[in-house]
Amino acid sequence: MSSPDNSQIRFIKRPEGPVGADSFEIISGPVPEPATGQVVIRNRYLSLDPYMRSALNNVENLGRPIEGRVVGQIIASRHPDFREGDWVFAMGRWEQVSLVDGAAARHVNTNIAPASAYLGVLGFTGLTAWSGLKHYGALRAGETLFVSAASGAVGSVAGQIGKIRGLRVAGCAGTDDKVAWLLDELGFDAAFNHRTAPDLAQAVARACPEGIDVDYENVGGMVFDAVFGTMRYGGRIVVCGAISQYEREPRPCVPNIGDFITKRLTMRGFSVRDHAAEIYEYIEEAAGWLRDGKLKYRETVVAGIESAPAAFARLFSGENFGKLVVDVG
Amino acid sequence: MSSPDNSQIRFIKRPEGPVGADSFEIISGPVPEPATGQVVIRNRYLSLDPYMRSALNNVENLGRPIEGRVVGQIIASRHPDFREGDWVFAMGRWEQVSLVDGAAARHVNTNIAPASAYLGVLGFTGLTAWSGLKHYGALRAGETLFVSAASGAVGSVAGQIGKIRGLRVAGCAGTDDKVAWLLDELGFDAAFNHRTAPDLAQAVARACPEGIDVDYENVGGMVFDAVFGTMRYGGRIVVCGAISQYEREPRPCVPNIGDFITKRLTMRGFSVRDHAAEIYEYIEEAAGWLRDGKLKYRETVVAGIESAPAAFARLFSGENFGKLVVDVG
Repeated sequence: MSSPDNSQIRFIKRPEGPVGADSFEIISGPVPEPATGQVVIRNRYLSLDPYMRSALNNVENLGRPIEGRVVGQIIASRHPDFREGDWVFAMGRWEQVSLVDGAAARHVNTNIAPASAYLGVLGFTGLTAWSGLKHYGALRAGETLFVSAASGAVGSVAGQIGKIRGLRVAGCAGTDDKVAWLLDELGFDAAFNHRTAPDLAQAVARACPEGIDVDYENVGGMVFDAVFGTMRYGGRIVVCGAISQYEREPRPCVPNIGDFITKRLTMRGFSVRDHAAEIYEYIEEAAGWLRDGKLKYRETVVAGIESAPAAFARLFSGENFGKLVVDVG
Repeated sequence: MSSPDNSQIRFIKRPEGPVGADSFEIISGPVPEPATGQVVIRNRYLSLDPYMRSALNNVENLGRPIEGRVVGQIIASRHPDFREGDWVFAMGRWEQVSLVDGAAARHVNTNIAPASAYLGVLGFTGLTAWSGLKHYGALRAGETLFVSAASGAVGSVAGQIGKIRGLRVAGCAGTDDKVAWLLDELGFDAAFNHRTAPDLAQAVARACPEGIDVDYENVGGMVFDAVFGTMRYGGRIVVCGAISQYEREPRPCVPNIGDFITKRLTMRGFSVRDHAAEIYEYIEEAAGWLRDGKLKYRETVVAGIESAPAAFARLFSGENFGKLVVDVG
C-alpha cells in the first residue's frame, strides 16, 4: 500500500516570460508501489537542466511533476537486476520518490565518483559535450574550438575535451569569476565575460585570433552572431543549445547564408537523446580523465526538493555556476 | 604576332547597388599568341552566372575582363592534346578570344549536345545541382525536395534529379511562365510564384504539405525564411546560392538556431569548385538522362559579346529564364 510520504513539485502554470516559482506548487503525494518489472527510487539528487524549459511550454505537463534525471537508491524492486539499497540513475520526476521501469534504470558506481557526478560530469551533461563533439565536431588537433556558456555543466566538459584532443580552446561566460575559473582551473587558452564585453565581435576575434574551426554552441542570440562572423573556412557549428533564446520569441531574421557558401560551413543541431546508448563508453573514458586530473567540474547543490523551482529559474538568469543539482535529502 | 582583333569587356567600376552596364566598357584587345603548353580559344559561348557577382566587389579585377566559363574552338595550340578546330570548355574571360593553359581546357563532344549545353545542363551549372545533392543532400526516395529559383540553370537540374531519384519535388520561381514550365514540362509536383504569393510561409506549406526533407537553396532572404520554418525532422539544407542577397549588405544573423536542435537540422554550404573533378562522371550520367528525355533544359541566348553587361544585370532582376549564355558569334 502507498503511504502519503512523497513531496512532489507539480507544474501548475505555464510561465509568461521568465520562469518563476509561481509556475509550481509543492504537494504531498503517495509513495508508489512497484508493479512487475518496476523499481521505486528514493531520489537523492535531482538534475536541473536548461532543456527542461521546453516542458513548461507544454500544457500536457500541467498538474504533474516535471520529468527530470535523478540519482538515488532503490527502496523497492520488482525487477531482477535491482535490490534495495542499489544506487541507480534514471529519468524520474521532481519528487522525493520516483517509480520507474527497471529497464530504464542504470546502476552507478559511487566508488568512482560521488553519486551527484552521475547527473553531471559522468552523466548526460558530460555525454552531451562528448557526443556532440565526437559525432558533429570532427575535432582536429591544432584547430580552435570556441565554447559559449563555457563554465556551464556542458560547456566546461566540452572545453576540457577540446584541450584533451589538442585543440586551442576559447570560451565565454557571464561573470568574471566564471571566466577566471576557465582560465585558471580548466586551462582554457582564452576566455571573456560576454555580459561586460563592450563589443562581442571584437571579444571573440581577440579570443580566437586565427578564427574558429569548431563552435560548440550553447547560447545563441548575440553571442552566436559574433561567433558566426569569426568562423573559419570549413568550420563546424555544433548546436547543442540556445539558452539566451529559450525565454523569448524566436527572432525574425533574414539570415546571411552566403557565409555558409564562401566558408563551406556546416551547422548541425543535435540532442544527447540520440546518443543515450553511448553513456557507458563515455563514463569509462571520462572516469579515466577524472582520475588523471584532466577533467574538472563544479557543482551548485541546493538543499531540499522545495528549492527546485527557484533554483531552476536561476539557470536562465546566469546566477548558477557549474552543474546545478537539488539534494533531495 | 598578336593582331588587334579581340573585343573584350573590361570591368571598370565597382557597382554601388544593382549592377549596371556602366561598370563595363568594350575595348579592342590583341589576339594572344600561345606559349608552350597554352592554347588560344575563339570563344563561341560565354556563360553568365550569379556567382560572378562577387568578382565585381573585388577591386583587383578592375581594368580587366571578368573571368567566365567559355565553350569555343581552338585557333592556336602549343599543347599536344589540342589541335585547331577542337571544341573545348575552359575558364576564359569576357572576350572573343581567350588564352588559357591547355591543362585547364577540356574537350567537349558536340555530337552529344550542342556546344552551349556544356555551359549549362552538361556543364558546371548542372554539376552544381548534381554534386550538391549527391554530397550534401542524402536524398531518399519518397522524401520531399524543395528548390528555390527552381526554373534557373541550377535549380531546374536539381529539381529534375529529385524526380529521377524518386522524391516529391516542389519549388518556386519569379514569374507565372516559369512556374508553368516547372509544372508542365519538368514534372514538379508543386510550384508557386514567390513574387506574387501573398504569404510565403503559407505558399511553401501548401506546396509541401508534409514538410521539407531537403532544401536546395539558391535564393536566401525571405524565401529561405519561409522554407526554414517548413523543414522536417532530420532535414538537410544544401546552400548553393543566395541570389536575393548578393546586391545587399549581409545581415549578420542566422535563423532561429533552436530549430536546429529540435529538428536535428543540418545546413551545409558548398561550391562546385570543390567537385570540379566529377564533371566527367556527371556528364556521362546527365547525357543519358538527356537522351531518355528525363532531363530538360532551357537557355536564354543573347547575341554578341557587347550584350554581356546588360544580360548579366538581368540575372539579378529575374528577367532571365533558364541558363543564360552569350553567343559571342
